[in-house]
Amino acid sequence: MEHVNAPSSPSPATVGPLSGTEVPRFAGASTFARLPRVDQVEKVDVAVVGAPFDTGVSYRPGARFGPGHIRQSSRLLRPYNPAQEIAPFAVQQVADAGDMVINPFDIEEAIGQVQEQAAAFVDGGARLVTLGGDHTIALPLLRTMHREHGEIAVLHFDAHLDTWDTYFGAPYTHGTPFRRASEEGLIDHSASLHVGIRGSLYDRADLEDDAAAGFRVLSSRQFARDSLDGLIERMLDRLGDRPVYVSVDIDVLDPAHAPGTGTPEAGGLTSRELLEMIRALPPRNVVGADVVEVAPAYDHAELTGIAASHVVYELISAMALTHGKATS
Amino acid sequence: MEHVNAPSSPSPATVGPLSGTEVPRFAGASTFARLPRVDQVEKVDVAVVGAPFDTGVSYRPGARFGPGHIRQSSRLLRPYNPAQEIAPFAVQQVADAGDMVINPFDIEEAIGQVQEQAAAFVDGGARLVTLGGDHTIALPLLRTMHREHGEIAVLHFDAHLDTWDTYFGAPYTHGTPFRRASEEGLIDHSASLHVGIRGSLYDRADLEDDAAAGFRVLSSRQFARDSLDGLIERMLDRLGDRPVYVSVDIDVLDPAHAPGTGTPEAGGLTSRELLEMIRALPPRNVVGADVVEVAPAYDHAELTGIAASHVVYELISAMALTHGKATS
Amino acid sequence: MEHVNAPSSPSPATVGPLSGTEVPRFAGASTFARLPRVDQVEKVDVAVVGAPFDTGVSYRPGARFGPGHIRQSSRLLRPYNPAQEIAPFAVQQVADAGDMVINPFDIEEAIGQVQEQAAAFVDGGARLVTLGGDHTIALPLLRTMHREHGEIAVLHFDAHLDTWDTYFGAPYTHGTPFRRASEEGLIDHSASLHVGIRGSLYDRADLEDDAAAGFRVLSSRQFARDSLDGLIERMLDRLGDRPVYVSVDIDVLDPAHAPGTGTPEAGGLTSRELLEMIRALPPRNVVGADVVEVAPAYDHAELTGIAASHVVYELISAMALTHGKATS
Amino acid sequence: MEHVNAPSSPSPATVGPLSGTEVPRFAGASTFARLPRVDQVEKVDVAVVGAPFDTGVSYRPGARFGPGHIRQSSRLLRPYNPAQEIAPFAVQQVADAGDMVINPFDIEEAIGQVQEQAAAFVDGGARLVTLGGDHTIALPLLRTMHREHGEIAVLHFDAHLDTWDTYFGAPYTHGTPFRRASEEGLIDHSASLHVGIRGSLYDRADLEDDAAAGFRVLSSRQFARDSLDGLIERMLDRLGDRPVYVSVDIDVLDPAHAPGTGTPEAGGLTSRELLEMIRALPPRNVVGADVVEVAPAYDHAELTGIAASHVVYELISAMALTHGKATS
Amino acid sequence: MEHVNAPSSPSPATVGPLSGTEVPRFAGASTFARLPRVDQVEKVDVAVVGAPFDTGVSYRPGARFGPGHIRQSSRLLRPYNPAQEIAPFAVQQVADAGDMVINPFDIEEAIGQVQEQAAAFVDGGARLVTLGGDHTIALPLLRTMHREHGEIAVLHFDAHLDTWDTYFGAPYTHGTPFRRASEEGLIDHSASLHVGIRGSLYDRADLEDDAAAGFRVLSSRQFARDSLDGLIERMLDRLGDRPVYVSVDIDVLDPAHAPGTGTPEAGGLTSRELLEMIRALPPRNVVGADVVEVAPAYDHAELTGIAASHVVYELISAMALTHGKATS
Amino acid sequence: MEHVNAPSSPSPATVGPLSGTEVPRFAGASTFARLPRVDQVEKVDVAVVGAPFDTGVSYRPGARFGPGHIRQSSRLLRPYNPAQEIAPFAVQQVADAGDMVINPFDIEEAIGQVQEQAAAFVDGGARLVTLGGDHTIALPLLRTMHREHGEIAVLHFDAHLDTWDTYFGAPYTHGTPFRRASEEGLIDHSASLHVGIRGSLYDRADLEDDAAAGFRVLSSRQFARDSLDGLIERMLDRLGDRPVYVSVDIDVLDPAHAPGTGTPEAGGLTSRELLEMIRALPPRNVVGADVVEVAPAYDHAELTGIAASHVVYELISAMALTHGKATS
Repeated sequence: MEHVNAPSSPSPATVGPLSGTEVPRFAGASTFARLPRVDQVEKVDVAVVGAPFDTGVSYRPGARFGPGHIRQSSRLLRPYNPAQEIAPFAVQQVADAGDMVINPFDIEEAIGQVQEQAAAFVDGGARLVTLGGDHTIALPLLRTMHREHGEIAVLHFDAHLDTWDTYFGAPYTHGTPFRRASEEGLIDHSASLHVGIRGSLYDRADLEDDAAAGFRVLSSRQFARDSLDGLIERMLDRLGDRPVYVSVDIDVLDPAHAPGTGTPEAGGLTSRELLEMIRALPPRNVVGADVVEVAPAYDHAELTGIAASHVVYELISAMALTHGKATS
Repeated sequence: MEHVNAPSSPSPATVGPLSGTEVPRFAGASTFARLPRVDQVEKVDVAVVGAPFDTGVSYRPGARFGPGHIRQSSRLLRPYNPAQEIAPFAVQQVADAGDMVINPFDIEEAIGQVQEQAAAFVDGGARLVTLGGDHTIALPLLRTMHREHGEIAVLHFDAHLDTWDTYFGAPYTHGTPFRRASEEGLIDHSASLHVGIRGSLYDRADLEDDAAAGFRVLSSRQFARDSLDGLIERMLDRLGDRPVYVSVDIDVLDPAHAPGTGTPEAGGLTSRELLEMIRALPPRNVVGADVVEVAPAYDHAELTGIAASHVVYELISAMALTHGKATS
Repeated sequence: MEHVNAPSSPSPATVGPLSGTEVPRFAGASTFARLPRVDQVEKVDVAVVGAPFDTGVSYRPGARFGPGHIRQSSRLLRPYNPAQEIAPFAVQQVADAGDMVINPFDIEEAIGQVQEQAAAFVDGGARLVTLGGDHTIALPLLRTMHREHGEIAVLHFDAHLDTWDTYFGAPYTHGTPFRRASEEGLIDHSASLHVGIRGSLYDRADLEDDAAAGFRVLSSRQFARDSLDGLIERMLDRLGDRPVYVSVDIDVLDPAHAPGTGTPEAGGLTSRELLEMIRALPPRNVVGADVVEVAPAYDHAELTGIAASHVVYELISAMALTHGKATS
Repeated sequence: MEHVNAPSSPSPATVGPLSGTEVPRFAGASTFARLPRVDQVEKVDVAVVGAPFDTGVSYRPGARFGPGHIRQSSRLLRPYNPAQEIAPFAVQQVADAGDMVINPFDIEEAIGQVQEQAAAFVDGGARLVTLGGDHTIALPLLRTMHREHGEIAVLHFDAHLDTWDTYFGAPYTHGTPFRRASEEGLIDHSASLHVGIRGSLYDRADLEDDAAAGFRVLSSRQFARDSLDGLIERMLDRLGDRPVYVSVDIDVLDPAHAPGTGTPEAGGLTSRELLEMIRALPPRNVVGADVVEVAPAYDHAELTGIAASHVVYELISAMALTHGKATS
Repeated sequence: MEHVNAPSSPSPATVGPLSGTEVPRFAGASTFARLPRVDQVEKVDVAVVGAPFDTGVSYRPGARFGPGHIRQSSRLLRPYNPAQEIAPFAVQQVADAGDMVINPFDIEEAIGQVQEQAAAFVDGGARLVTLGGDHTIALPLLRTMHREHGEIAVLHFDAHLDTWDTYFGAPYTHGTPFRRASEEGLIDHSASLHVGIRGSLYDRADLEDDAAAGFRVLSSRQFARDSLDGLIERMLDRLGDRPVYVSVDIDVLDPAHAPGTGTPEAGGLTSRELLEMIRALPPRNVVGADVVEVAPAYDHAELTGIAASHVVYELISAMALTHGKATS
Repeated sequence: MEHVNAPSSPSPATVGPLSGTEVPRFAGASTFARLPRVDQVEKVDVAVVGAPFDTGVSYRPGARFGPGHIRQSSRLLRPYNPAQEIAPFAVQQVADAGDMVINPFDIEEAIGQVQEQAAAFVDGGARLVTLGGDHTIALPLLRTMHREHGEIAVLHFDAHLDTWDTYFGAPYTHGTPFRRASEEGLIDHSASLHVGIRGSLYDRADLEDDAAAGFRVLSSRQFARDSLDGLIERMLDRLGDRPVYVSVDIDVLDPAHAPGTGTPEAGGLTSRELLEMIRALPPRNVVGADVVEVAPAYDHAELTGIAASHVVYELISAMALTHGKATS
């Protein structure tokens, strides 16, 4: 009943999304952007995969429903990105890999499952864009990245540092992935950056711990004062020319733009600011990415889901602009 | 990433739904009840197909999003139905056929598309359970039924008669399918029945026209006074032993049970009453069915979607109980 | 742009609602049931008037938006009532009188305003159906009724007795109208009845005070055990053949059926039960009525508004069945 | 019950809105801004008219309820506009003309109905501000404008170009009005402009087709970088001194500011930006305007409705500032 | 600022809830029913305690916010229960014990924490009414009960059996507490009962396993056919005269009555039916109880919270009626 | 069950909030930021007190539930404020004083009650941060401030001037507090300022009356054009070095950022802008503050509550930075 075709694809080698002029956008495939499933294509350059898991959440849960919600909210995405002047699904084969199988009752087993399933994609040559789920999953994803690329520049959009140590004795939660990643030597201390940080902390030492873990900070407050071009320049300076892993906690957006999340903080970025930051990344080589912490039960009218799906679209577009580039 | 298996299926011949003990119910396949897609099985006894169309709606639109919403709300359905003591996905092969392709801008073309796509399933030997969409689609579905079974007993659950003539000059809308079907000789005038009718009418003549079209009425008011067993007996008496097409407008439920619909009327059935009526159908031979008018934008917490998915489950169970029976 | 006509009206003397086959029901007049405004007709037999006031509320406010919400939720009401076999807008002239002007900052002045404006209608020969607003308005409405009819039988549907004495020293609130009415000698102690009462009380004495004020009780619990016909008989026995004023607090319905109200109590009536009780009133002479405590901010998908508008429709139908009868 | 007066109107010739100090804003007239109806005034300089139609929608429907929702959301609008230092309802007679009668089942008939009813107002000397409804209605409105003013400068606020060709074979939908208008020679190719464009396209050629249709683009991305005054200057330069028709698709706003719409795109304008752009128009002569695509089922707390009603208020204010000016 | 007093308390020995005539119900204490905190009273007969934990949930999470939501929804509860003719807060000292401290990241540690904290109350002589939280907590609560009362009659209101074995290898989840409790010898196999069961199962064997675990079933379907008095009689027969532990999963209610829960099933009980069942328990000795699975993110207008708080009120009333009775 | 401790507090003299690493943030105390209650500490430097009152509201009511909602939305606030480099709960004792007792049926009595209860705190040496409630309460709070500090500089964030005269004859409503305060000589005419004003007015004279009452205006429109630093400078210039009372009507935020309020106006401030303005106040001496007009029934996902709670946090931080400073 659903036909996959690629009317605006210049290359016969890629299978594009279901056409919006043949099947109404409210109908048909429930894959991300109505792209083909991985089993419908011969090779995969970029795999969009869900990680439906939220057991690492400390406040409002529900990100387990995030992958499905982002997919449902992505139905209006069209094949051509005028901001980047590229057709991201045509120059590279993008496909939806469905959801990872993850145990909701055991965090450490879950981390192992994410790591194993992510590795299978990466070993197959695909770049991975993971739809969370909570931020706990960034750790196994970074482990996979590290195996491929060595110490990686992490560009982390978030209201929170996520470099806390433990919480109720648990070392692996959505507040700790970058602390663990740093301890495990996965990230490049000279090229990692948080963007959008704001709100209250547990202690002044949180910031010192964070710096020690290898991060610098562009806070949300700076967006109220500095020009977007100035902020982009500082971001790019920090990243250098390292391969970049981009991790987007949707709570980097102001709650007005992303109510559907677990630990919202007032005073955040607009979706326009976030999208512009990501559009500025090429020709940096985005070798992997995640968009996490979308909790649909708190969303309204797919507001948060739409913002997240647009972020994913720009990440895939950035990957398209470096397609073919050696990824390490 | 998603494995289809059938742990509780006694027959190796059928592929069952994705197991809830292997992949969490909030993850994985977005098919109805996490069943296999039609392209994943060799034959199909019962096809669940979406008809995302709502251009025939006279008040609150949005049923175009109904099929996806019912599927999302069906994730908790499990393989064994204790009310009927049957495993409906094991004794017959049930699969999700995706969505029909339907033109949202031309009602008559849309009716032709539904008819053609429905016929393809029926010709292939499958019974069809169609997820609406608005009630306009009942007409092409009844045409398909008639071609296979001749004049058919229509069991119609609805707050409204849906036997109006025209509306703004349009002969084909969600208020007219059974009038047109009667005029076209598709239904059995001796065995068709509305259940759940209530609310105000345009004119006293509406009831006369409806009777002339071949229907009798069990009103919602009767549920307030008569015993459920008495109502069931009257329903079964009317149906006789004819093959039955069951058409369920979800607004047969009280708005408390189904807020997510387009023309709600106070004073309706509870979901418990509706499910019991459908459970009473076997051994009547349910040769086809639809569940229509689920408008997710007005739903809350998947209340309406869950009710609709349970209705679909009982319809499939009723089909399972007559599986193998000649269908005409 | 809006044409008022009456296609199903047998009498040339009445102006009916805007026809749903000429102007879509989602468009056009925002009057109750799309009826004419009082200034569009020559005489008025039944006036539907809003009393947008909620300053007497003790818990969740918002009933000030009730009249507009009930009107918006009444757009699907059609001209013929099959339950009563009558066209209620054809045998009598029903019109929408807009909203009363009421001071939101001074309860006592507000009561005076309601009383004065209600009297103007009644003096003009119209029966009044008032859309609340909170229950405080029942007192001035009963004063008006008393002036016309003497001691009146009050049929009061509510979860609460509303015969409390004072609250924070205030004698006039939504919890006290029937206490005050009884003290003022407005009601018939031998024929007044609460229906649907449930939930916790301040004190055992509340019930004694209530009985002393002239009321008997059919509790919601009795609906779980007794037959509807039995309950109706008890209601009618109590009312005798007195002229009846019907006051419906929408919280008589279970919160599942009426979430949009200020002081919800679990365990209430279904909308089907409530509508049947009202349908049983004729040939009792309903000389006036109100439907109060609809608080739209807590409603969902017009659930509560639709229930309220159907109650109003049945009250008007009951009036139609005694149209022409002497009203005292 | 409702008194229309004009306490802050300097001119005895105009009837102003219902006073908020005499009738509470939550009560009384349901007209736009509580203005008089057209039948309550002797002449009409500016008519606010609803076009409740959404059959041209390609994704989330519901704009058929837009006019009523915008009116309900306009109750807080007061008589004096300090941003423009004018009392827009006093210097010109503004009135609410109710809703157009439009067939929901036939797009082409609907377009004819809008055109005919709009022409009746324009022929009567009124400027028209139309409340959508979906964007399909811009075509018949532009035809009416063209008959009066010749080729007109179109100032189009939208996330989307709306210059697509056909969709499912349908030439008239909410994605095509400006393509058709350009083909019909209705618009001035030297003075038309889209503002707020963003998001993905079907093809690179969409932009070329759009330019060929006579439009230039101020994208939403430019609002993130350029000063508001710079953007205003570019808008005014493009418009020149031509009579201007302003068409505002509410999805020009970010979904955070306008969730209640059918095809939301992340990264949009704030309501403050949009209002400032419109305030900058005088002394350009705004000869007509529409505000479309408000879909209340997806709105929250009247967020979208309030934004839309403020846009309408500024459009009426702009008209007030050129009141008396020859309109062609 | 908040004064605790007990105007309707006949006994000087108890401290009652904050009076609604002195402090408005929307203000003041956020304890259950505005009762005193445990630290404000000298002894506690009944402790209401929160167990904010939902890590054992298999579908929609969020019951961690259940205790606070039930408390907020309990503000309208008043001191006198006319259904039982008792003042439940006057004949026994009821107090709010706040929330248990529970680790959200480790289910087994959490179970230990609940067990330990519950035991502290029970050892202190209090009966415990626990506000969930997910159903996992029933196991440690039953352990505590068993230590005090030996094998206990469990009266379990739920849509689901909750006697599954493991889920993703986890023995302790919200679907398994009664299986574990049976295996641990905590429950009386001759006197335990599920009420309200419905919906689909994993396998026919689920029912056999359940019977083997010591339960009998009154299904929701039986409520559609049998009289309430008949059902009550069967419930009481099964319970005999054993001390009873009552465990109420709010999803026993139909989703119309309790949308705010994690695994809703259509066709459930009304709140009126559930409350009547609980009211029928005295003089059975209710020695402890829980009300679980209230997930506020899916609730609307406190519908579910209000139903839950009324259930708690009836449980406390039942305890009041056997106050002073030996509890084993 | 709830332990109050202060892990990040350098001073043994203060009792800090409940630790988020010991009791999950979704559990435990329902005080503001999980701070101790006033009865749990020996002295109070800053008291957070609720004023649950909304009888002065002219449009959407519901702010009576504001204090509880802001508290619930404050659970994520942590002890250290990096924007100000201070631990606001450690350098001064902050405690939650619960809710004032206020009569909902008599505005003038209510004003007296607020004044009396506020005075009790101020006389005890505490600075007061009041959680509204509607803006009516600013008058009695300013009276209290004046008694302590003489004519005070009022920094008023709001969409509206709130210097109207009377409304329906009522001198004390949420639209008039600053007019009355000015007339009573409470405010410093040389140092008072509105920030964020926008939207339509009743009359041009409103602005003149406002200036005469002693205020200057920084409008929301200026935020679209001027730099934040420039706006801050103008604010600080106006305030001089006077003790400042800060009154924040949450509707100063755009409805996108604060839907949960009673009289929303499009085109408002972002939460980032508002927080930056407040952070700029030190070393001005903030001697008291209120945050009002949070109406939870219109909020979504605690969007408005979170913004309000962050504003309160910054106000307390500003107070911390001048702790010990003479307050007059």
